Amino acid sequence: MHNITIKFPRNPRNVYVGINTLSQFGETLGAHKVGKKGLLITNATISKLYARVIIESCQNVGFTVDILELPEGEQYKNLTTIQTILDKLVENKLERKDFVLALGGGVIGDMAGFAAAIYLRGINLIQIPTSLLAQVDSSLGGKTGVNHAKGKNLIGSFYQPIFTFIDLATLKTLPQKEIRCGLAEIVKYGVIQNPRLFNYLEQHASQIKAEQYTQDLEIWEYLVLQSCTNKAYVVAKDEKESNLREILNFGHTLGHAIETAFEYTYYSHGEAVAIGMHAACLIAVQQGLLAPNIQQKIATLLLNLGFNLSIAPIQAKQIETLLFSDKKVKDGKLRFVLPTKIGKVIVSNEVPAVVIHEIITSLIEEQK
Amino acid sequence: MHNITIKFPRNPRNVYVGINTLSQFGETLGAHKVGKKGLLITNATISKLYARVIIESCQNVGFTVDILELPEGEQYKNLTTIQTILDKLVENKLERKDFVLALGGGVIGDMAGFAAAIYLRGINLIQIPTSLLAQVDSSLGGKTGVNHAKGKNLIGSFYQPIFTFIDLATLKTLPQKEIRCGLAEIVKYGVIQNPRLFNYLEQHASQIKAEQYTQDLEIWEYLVLQSCTNKAYVVAKDEKESNLREILNFGHTLGHAIETAFEYTYYSHGEAVAIGMHAACLIAVQQGLLAPNIQQKIATLLLNLGFNLSIAPIQAKQIETLLFSDKKVKDGKLRFVLPTKIGKVIVSNEVPAVVIHEIITSLIEEQK
Repeated sequence: MHNITIKFPRNPRNVYVGINTLSQFGETLGAHKVGKKGLLITNATISKLYARVIIESCQNVGFTVDILELPEGEQYKNLTTIQTILDKLVENKLERKDFVLALGGGVIGDMAGFAAAIYLRGINLIQIPTSLLAQVDSSLGGKTGVNHAKGKNLIGSFYQPIFTFIDLATLKTLPQKEIRCGLAEIVKYGVIQNPRLFNYLEQHASQIKAEQYTQDLEIWEYLVLQSCTNKAYVVAKDEKESNLREILNFGHTLGHAIETAFEYTYYSHGEAVAIGMHAACLIAVQQGLLAPNIQQKIATLLLNLGFNLSIAPIQAKQIETLLFSDKKVKDGKLRFVLPTKIGKVIVSNEVPAVVIHEIITSLIEEQK
Repeated sequence: MHNITIKFPRNPRNVYVGINTLSQFGETLGAHKVGKKGLLITNATISKLYARVIIESCQNVGFTVDILELPEGEQYKNLTTIQTILDKLVENKLERKDFVLALGGGVIGDMAGFAAAIYLRGINLIQIPTSLLAQVDSSLGGKTGVNHAKGKNLIGSFYQPIFTFIDLATLKTLPQKEIRCGLAEIVKYGVIQNPRLFNYLEQHASQIKAEQYTQDLEIWEYLVLQSCTNKAYVVAKDEKESNLREILNFGHTLGHAIETAFEYTYYSHGEAVAIGMHAACLIAVQQGLLAPNIQQKIATLLLNLGFNLSIAPIQAKQIETLLFSDKKVKDGKLRFVLPTKIGKVIVSNEVPAVVIHEIITSLIEEQK
């Protein structure tokens, strides 16, 4: 099992990455200072696959773990579900030293993490992400939360898990369309700070894109390890998202607007982020920050990994209105993360609205 | 205006203490780096008294401040009211750099603080406590939260205000029974770490207890300044309540159980804490930790300040059951903060249950 350390100044946290390691979870937990009782939070689908092996491995080393299955889907990611989790934690009389296990994808991790953050003002949390997106992104860095009727992730906390436990074998049961969600983030780490990872993606694109994508889990182990190391570096330097962490938004500002404009049904997060990254590269070229051949190289990789880089028919204005209501807008100014070469980005709030408009318009497909 | 600094290792925070200073609030806010928009959260009673002067002082220096009045009373301190606050923050499109002003007593401070903590994962918060209890205790140290149907303050965050602004003139409109609430905490600081404060209380007991207790606001300025300085020292050393901060629970473990046993109607928080401190002193004497004459000195001060030190008729068992379900119980063991002299306490988890039982029983009045 590989072990990455997120070097927070006061409390460094570990990320364990391995293949077929779930049965060792209890042992790993036992090496940390936690209470005897825990609550495993998951959903029915994931519960059937992995809850038993985790709970048994915990029981083998003397822990008592109860289970709570949440309803599935982003539409339940709200304060009502948080209340359900809190009721269960109160009912089980968990103390601060006890623990919450968040087993699942990003939605489970965000909700279980947020409930753990606010129950008794913070109980021990362990993230066990089972989707590629959660493994390379959402389970690291401590962002937790739920949606508000008026917008995604408007309510939440920064709350660090005591450790994150990643078993790549869980990717075997992941629907292939969800792989693409995580893949966009991996490309992101390559572009913003890891040229070696970018090259590896170029070299292994056909295997990664293949129907039998989990045949060689070691490819995924490399991708996840590199991604976690990159993210760990950034969040350790900027836990509360005041500065450096902003580079992780590469492709996300426009990506979120596209997701929302299509009401979260047409584009997955990763598909929208891929278009967002492509658009950011085009903006960077227009601003004279990026060489056109590098922009081409990034677009080619995205296409080779199976991403579509145009936007389905829509009014550009719909996307632009959403863009300017993003929660990261500062004093009404949009901030764009723009690459200057593979492995290096800058943040600019000087992209003229007209340039944004032109590039969005150029990416929108014509109505057939 | 006095200025106390809470020396958190990364982000020191100020506490401004003065008399008739509310009209200078906007100016003070302007000296901090915050956005242009804010939401003042209060209740109808306090709004009538102080909202206008604060909002005008903010407008005078260019801020825009909207107001939200919450329903009054501990029974509304729940997630439903938090949702109301969040809806208003979303509706007003406040950004992370913008601010929430919590104007009122502990309930307002806890709820506005918690909403500020979880909106966009944390927006700027300023506490403007108007009750003595909030001024010397709850507005400092960053504890925020709401009640769960099954227990008080089970849900919340540690979240520090960017500063705390205390105008002692607000005590003039405080019902005298609420003075006692804060007074118990002031005695606590004297006993746990401030012998000079303890002496000052002894010398000024008659003025403090008097009907016209706010005639000399400078007495209260001294008491609040000393208390804030003491609390600032403790919370700065232990922001997340892992160790030193535990001494602030002097009198509170039993105090909470008494409050709950009488369903929060018979005893105010301060009255219950006074009994809790008295009981802790008796336990300390029984354990050979405290000289009987010092215990007498503490009991005399509490009586001179108007506290009743016996418990109204009840079954001891009712209190004891609640004692052992406190959220600070560790591995089923009760931890008591026990004084060894004026200004010094230790924490013990070795008080036998039978001693606790005897002392509680001895304090319960006989049914008339």
